[in-house]
Amino acid sequence: MNRVIRVNMTDLKATQEKPPAELAHLGGRALISHVIYSEIPPTSHPLGKKNKLIVAPGLLAGSTAPNSGRLSIGAKSPLTGGTKEANVGGTAAQKLARLGVKAVIMEGKPAKGSLYVLKVNKDSAEIIPAPQLAGVGNYETTARLRRAHGDKVAILCIGPAGEMRMTAASVASTDPEGRPSRHAARGGLGAVMGSKGVKAIVIDDAGTKAPAARDKTTFREISKAFTQEIMERKATALFSQFGTVGGLAYLSKIGALPTRNFSAGSFEGDSKIGGKGVAELNATRGGSFGHVCMPGCVVRCSNVMHDKDGQFLTAGFEYESSAMLGANLGLDDLDTVMALEKMCDDLGLDTMEVGAAIGVAQEAGLYAFGAGARILELMREIAQGTVLGRVLGQGAEVTARVFGISRVPTVKGQAVPAHDPRKEIGTGIGYATNPQGADHTGVIIFHAEDTAEMVATSRQKQLTTAAYDSAGLCQMTDPSLEVMAKLLSSFYGWNWTAEDVAEMGRAALRKELAFNRNAGLGPATDRLPDFFAEEALSPYEGTFKVPTDEFEKVLKF
Amino acid sequence: MNRVIRVNMTDLKATQEKPPAELAHLGGRALISHVIYSEIPPTSHPLGKKNKLIVAPGLLAGSTAPNSGRLSIGAKSPLTGGTKEANVGGTAAQKLARLGVKAVIMEGKPAKGSLYVLKVNKDSAEIIPAPQLAGVGNYETTARLRRAHGDKVAILCIGPAGEMRMTAASVASTDPEGRPSRHAARGGLGAVMGSKGVKAIVIDDAGTKAPAARDKTTFREISKAFTQEIMERKATALFSQFGTVGGLAYLSKIGALPTRNFSAGSFEGDSKIGGKGVAELNATRGGSFGHVCMPGCVVRCSNVMHDKDGQFLTAGFEYESSAMLGANLGLDDLDTVMALEKMCDDLGLDTMEVGAAIGVAQEAGLYAFGAGARILELMREIAQGTVLGRVLGQGAEVTARVFGISRVPTVKGQAVPAHDPRKEIGTGIGYATNPQGADHTGVIIFHAEDTAEMVATSRQKQLTTAAYDSAGLCQMTDPSLEVMAKLLSSFYGWNWTAEDVAEMGRAALRKELAFNRNAGLGPATDRLPDFFAEEALSPYEGTFKVPTDEFEKVLKF
Repeated sequence: MNRVIRVNMTDLKATQEKPPAELAHLGGRALISHVIYSEIPPTSHPLGKKNKLIVAPGLLAGSTAPNSGRLSIGAKSPLTGGTKEANVGGTAAQKLARLGVKAVIMEGKPAKGSLYVLKVNKDSAEIIPAPQLAGVGNYETTARLRRAHGDKVAILCIGPAGEMRMTAASVASTDPEGRPSRHAARGGLGAVMGSKGVKAIVIDDAGTKAPAARDKTTFREISKAFTQEIMERKATALFSQFGTVGGLAYLSKIGALPTRNFSAGSFEGDSKIGGKGVAELNATRGGSFGHVCMPGCVVRCSNVMHDKDGQFLTAGFEYESSAMLGANLGLDDLDTVMALEKMCDDLGLDTMEVGAAIGVAQEAGLYAFGAGARILELMREIAQGTVLGRVLGQGAEVTARVFGISRVPTVKGQAVPAHDPRKEIGTGIGYATNPQGADHTGVIIFHAEDTAEMVATSRQKQLTTAAYDSAGLCQMTDPSLEVMAKLLSSFYGWNWTAEDVAEMGRAALRKELAFNRNAGLGPATDRLPDFFAEEALSPYEGTFKVPTDEFEKVLKF
Repeated sequence: MNRVIRVNMTDLKATQEKPPAELAHLGGRALISHVIYSEIPPTSHPLGKKNKLIVAPGLLAGSTAPNSGRLSIGAKSPLTGGTKEANVGGTAAQKLARLGVKAVIMEGKPAKGSLYVLKVNKDSAEIIPAPQLAGVGNYETTARLRRAHGDKVAILCIGPAGEMRMTAASVASTDPEGRPSRHAARGGLGAVMGSKGVKAIVIDDAGTKAPAARDKTTFREISKAFTQEIMERKATALFSQFGTVGGLAYLSKIGALPTRNFSAGSFEGDSKIGGKGVAELNATRGGSFGHVCMPGCVVRCSNVMHDKDGQFLTAGFEYESSAMLGANLGLDDLDTVMALEKMCDDLGLDTMEVGAAIGVAQEAGLYAFGAGARILELMREIAQGTVLGRVLGQGAEVTARVFGISRVPTVKGQAVPAHDPRKEIGTGIGYATNPQGADHTGVIIFHAEDTAEMVATSRQKQLTTAAYDSAGLCQMTDPSLEVMAKLLSSFYGWNWTAEDVAEMGRAALRKELAFNRNAGLGPATDRLPDFFAEEALSPYEGTFKVPTDEFEKVLKF
C-alpha cells in the first residue's frame, strides 16, 4: 500500500503522498492510533477543524487470508473525548488495499452546511459537491451513489444522524451486495464525518489487482491452515448457523443479558428475539443465516432479515442490536426490534448507544418498557431531529444528563454494550480499562477464576485484539499472535515473531492511553459507574466489586 | 461553632455532632474542600446518593468584622464533575454562626419525587415533608416559608431548576429583606440539592447571640481599621454608587465584554444595560443602588431594581448577569435583560451559565441575537421544563453537544463568565487553572506585564481568594493575608501569621485539585477552548496564546 490520501476539507483539496517511513509497519487500528496520537491536538474539540477522521484498511487487507478485510475508522471521539477506533466489515478495506491506499485522512472543516462525496479511484481522490444528498438515509444514499458510480464500488457513508452531529452516529459500510448494513458504530465517528461535511466516500477499485504476498507459497499454506483451524471450531459452526444473535438465549440464561435498562440479566422474551425467534421468522419469510459481510469470510455470521412481505429488511442483525434494542427496552416483539434496527441502519446510528439511551430515558417517564409503538415514536424523533431526538441521538450519557438521571450505564461517556459486567466480571474490567471506552470487542471474558486471572486475561485479550484490528483480521477468527506473525511475515517479507505482533498491539494501546491522558481523561475515568457495584443483578444477585486499583494494573505491560 | 449537622436523606435523619478536631481550623471553602476531598468517593455520580451537599459559614461569620457573612456551599459538581464551592451573600452564614453551626452536610438520597424542608434552630435540626412546595419558584417559596417560620429566618432554597436537576441550577439565599436574590450560582449545586430532595433550609437563630471574639479589643481595633481601609478605596465608592454593573461600560470600552456569544468584546448597547442605563431607570422608577446583601456590609454593591410600575423586580442585578444575559445575547433592552434575570432568580438558575447556553444556542438557529421576545420564550421553555428547556438548563456544554456545535465557551464544562480571556489574558490563565472551573471570582486580573507575572499573580490571587472564602470575607473587601491573620487570631485566640492564612488557602486548593484528579479530570482539562486561541476578538483583534505548559505552573506552590 503506497498511497496516503490527505483530504483538506477547509480548502477542499485532496492530496496523495507516499506513506512516510513511520507508517510502514502500521495498518488499521495501529495506524489510526498513531495518527490520532501524533497529529490531533488532544484537547481540541472533536467536531472542530483540528480533529481528523482516518480510514485505514488492516495490514492484510486485499490478501487471501481468511476474514482479512476489516476496516478501521478513527478520530478523537465526540462521545468519549478520547481516542477512538471503530472496526467494520464490508468491502471497503479490500478495495482500498487494491488501490494501494494505506489511509485516507480527512482534516479541516468546510463552510457550514456544505456536503461532499469523496471519490477514490486508481489514480486520484476527488471531492465532489453533494448538496442533494443532505438528509438522505444510508440506503437511498448508497443506491444513488451506486447508480452514479457503478455497483462495484464500496461506499462508506453517514446518514442523517451523522449530518446532525449526533454522537451516537455511525459510519456505514456496504457489504458485498452493496447494502449499507455494516457499521463502524461506536464513538460517534459519524458525527466527525458530518462535521467534515463528508457524506460518503466512494471507493472504486476498477483497473486494480489484489496485492500479492512476498512469499506466496508460505502465505497460501498458512492461510489455508488458519482457515482449516477456524472451520473446525464449534463457535464457527454456531455463528454460521445462527449468527451472533444465536448467543442471546445463552447470555439470558447465565444472566448477563442487559434487560430493562440493566435492571436484570435475564429476559423472559429471550427466545423470541434470539436465534430461535430469528430462525423461525426466517423460515416463514425467506430471510437467511450464513451470509458474509466481506469476500473471503469463512465464518459467515451475517444474516439477512426479511419483513412481513418477504422483502429485504436488514442484513447483519447482530446480538448486540437485539439485546440493546430488545431486552434492554423490555421488547420481545421481533418485528419491532428489527424495525428499530433498520432505522438505526438507515439513519446511521450505533444500535448499542441508542438502545442504552432509550433504556435510560425510561426513568424520565418517556415510555414504558416493552411499549413498542411508543419506542418507535422515539426513534422517529431521532430521525426528525426534534430536540428530544437530538438528545437521544447523543447517547445514554447526555440523555441521562438532560433528564437529571444518575444511574447511567456508560464508561467514558460511551454506553456499556450487551454483556452485563456484574455477571461477566472480567468483561467489566475490560469495559473500565479499554482506552476505547466500554466497547463490545476485545474485552469479553466469559470465564476466569479470580481477579488476578481476569486482569491478566483482559490485558492479553486487549493486546491481541489491538493486533488483529491492525492486521485487519475479523475478531471471529480469533487469531493467535503466532498465526498473525506468520501471515504478516510471509505477506510482507518481514521476520516478525509473535512478540513483534504483540508489540504492535501494545504500542497501539500505549498511544491510545497516552492520547486519552493528553486529552484530559485521567486514570479515574477508567472505572465502571457506581450502580454496577451497588445494585444486585437479578436473577443471580451479583454485583461488580473489583477493587479500583486492579484497573490500573490492566494496561501496565 | 460547636455543631456539625449531618442530614441523612436516605433515612431522613438529622444528627448533630461536635466538630471533629480536623475541622477545628476550617470554615467556609476550606472546610468544604476538605469534606469533599475526604468524604465523597471521587468517581461517584454527582446526583447519586454518595455525593454530599455541604453548607458552611466562613470562620469569621457572625463576628463584627466587615462583610464577614459570606456563605460557602459545595459538593461534587454535576456541571464539571469536579470539586465545587460556590459563595453567596445573604444572612444565612451569620445566623448559622450564631447557632454554632460549623457545617450542614446533606448525604444520601430520599425516595424519588419526595421533597423536604430542613429546619435548623437553636437546639435541633428537623426534616419536614414539603410536597406542597414542588415546582414553586424561589420568591413564592421564601414567602411561604417566612409565613410559616417567621420573617426573621434566613432561607436557602432551590427553584424548579434545581428540582429538575438542571446543572445550571443555583442555591438561592435570602438577603436582609428576605428576598431570595442572592445565589450560590455556579457548578449546578441546585441540582445536587434537588437530588437530595431538599427544597429549602430554614435557619432560625431565635434565642441566640453573636459569637464573641476571644480578644475583643484587638478584634474591634483591627475590624475598625480594616473597615476604614475599605471605605477609603476608590473601588468601594464606585460599587456603592453603581453596583458591579457600573463596570460594564468600562469592560466594553477595553473590549473584554462577552458580546453575541463571545464573538466581540465591545457592545454598542453598553450604556443601556450598564451602570448608566440602570441609574436612569432607577431615577424614574424608584429603584436604588447602595444596598447590602448582608448585615455588616460596608461596600454596599447591591442594587434594587423596579419594574415599569415601580414595583420591586429584583435585588442584586450584577455585572455578570447584565453582561451574559444582555451583551452576550445581543440584547440592549434593559427591561428584557432584567426580566430574564428575574426569571433566573425565581427558577434558581446561574445567570452566567444560562446566558452562555442561550448564547451558544444561537448557532443552532433557535433565535437571532437581540430578539428579546424570542429569548424570553426560550427562558419560559426552561421554566416549563420542556425538552429544549431542560437542554438549555444544563448549560452551555450540553446545549452545544445536543446541537452539534464545536465552539463552546466552557472550561471543565462550566461556562466562561463575563470577562473575555482574549482581552484579559491573566484572567484566562485563572479560568483554565482554577480547580472550580471558569469562575468569575478569584481569577480576574486586569493588568500584568507578561506571562510570568500573570502566572504568579493568578497563583497568588487564587490562594488569597481561597483564604477569604474560608474566612467568610466578601471578595469586595479584598483582604490581605495579614489582615486575615490578625482578624482570625484575635477572634479565635490563635497565633496565625499571614503564612498560616496562606497555608489555609493553599491546602484548600491542593485538596480541590487532588479531588479533580481523583474524579478523572486530568491536567489537560485545565485548558481554555480552542476558539479563544483561533478567533481574533474584535475590536482589538487579540487571541489567547498562553503556552499550555504555563498552566501547569500556576498551582505549583
